[in-house]
Amino acid sequence: MNFLEERIVKDGVVKAGNILKVDSFLNHQMDMRLFRQMGEEFKRRFADKPINKILTIEASGIGIACVAAECFDVPVVFAKKSQSVNIDGDVYVSEVESFTHKRVNRVIVSKKFLGPEDHILIIDDFLANGCALQGLISIVDQAGGTVEGIGIAIEKGFQPGGAKIREMGYPLESLAIVESMDDATGTVVFRPQP
Amino acid sequence: MNFLEERIVKDGVVKAGNILKVDSFLNHQMDMRLFRQMGEEFKRRFADKPINKILTIEASGIGIACVAAECFDVPVVFAKKSQSVNIDGDVYVSEVESFTHKRVNRVIVSKKFLGPEDHILIIDDFLANGCALQGLISIVDQAGGTVEGIGIAIEKGFQPGGAKIREMGYPLESLAIVESMDDATGTVVFRPQP
Repeated sequence: MNFLEERIVKDGVVKAGNILKVDSFLNHQMDMRLFRQMGEEFKRRFADKPINKILTIEASGIGIACVAAECFDVPVVFAKKSQSVNIDGDVYVSEVESFTHKRVNRVIVSKKFLGPEDHILIIDDFLANGCALQGLISIVDQAGGTVEGIGIAIEKGFQPGGAKIREMGYPLESLAIVESMDDATGTVVFRPQP
Repeated sequence: MNFLEERIVKDGVVKAGNILKVDSFLNHQMDMRLFRQMGEEFKRRFADKPINKILTIEASGIGIACVAAECFDVPVVFAKKSQSVNIDGDVYVSEVESFTHKRVNRVIVSKKFLGPEDHILIIDDFLANGCALQGLISIVDQAGGTVEGIGIAIEKGFQPGGAKIREMGYPLESLAIVESMDDATGTVVFRPQP
């Protein structure tokens, strides 16, 4: 097991309905030493890519993205969730369905901060159905930029998002891929990684 | 002028209605070298405080809080905005009025991550009317914790939030305090700092 898988086993909590609570270190309370390890691991996995900017989505992606960005020495842009119907023409927009909150969010990024010259690493904390990720990919496409890679902390390997994104040909690296969970025993099984 | 004031003069944009746009480096695109300078400056200003945790609020406070937290070698907890009416008993709640979005948000923090043993540095990107900050202070009070300090990137000194918080006796450090702005000339005047 790698450092993140070990941490999930130690401090993650499996709940009924295939819910994995990692709020003690990842997405409510945030362990900065762990985040630094994740940032360095992303840097190692995407070392050969000409990344000049990291794109993430509010809120829980921002912390990981910022620490990773320090490892890459690049700026971060975070996509904002917007409920307003009137979006002016200065932003890229995509619609993202949230399974957690059962609603569709608009996700926006100002056109000032993404363009054809950008080589983007997309970072997020979770990958399940891949809706947020597809929204971010769409925004990079609208900007004419290049998605050089996608770095995820925890992928739920039993949900379809990861397979879809890999089929589309994107270099996707998830630091921990959960194959299955059992809330009765609290066990988590990870997909073996090279 | 310090490094943040210089950056505001260089890249900030003054708009009508006392709006200061700093989205190219602070709260949409985020310049991590600047964030590291801010984190180190907060560490210098609060060097004598026994801070063991940083508290911020989603979304744009998270990046600054995370980089500052690396300087302090402590974890971050971010308060979540919740529109749900049903809040279970496991969270601290406060109501925060948003002047930007003209609505009241509930702000919540899980009781697991704040308690009487915590010595908190509150971090946020902006201070204007102080509503978000008062919500965070209320949450630390509910937890029985201690607010050791408050670190803000940009304070609008012509709005009442900063004065109110200082009158309450909290050590408040804003890296740049804007005394006045003029959208016709684009000029920003800062309050002199020691």
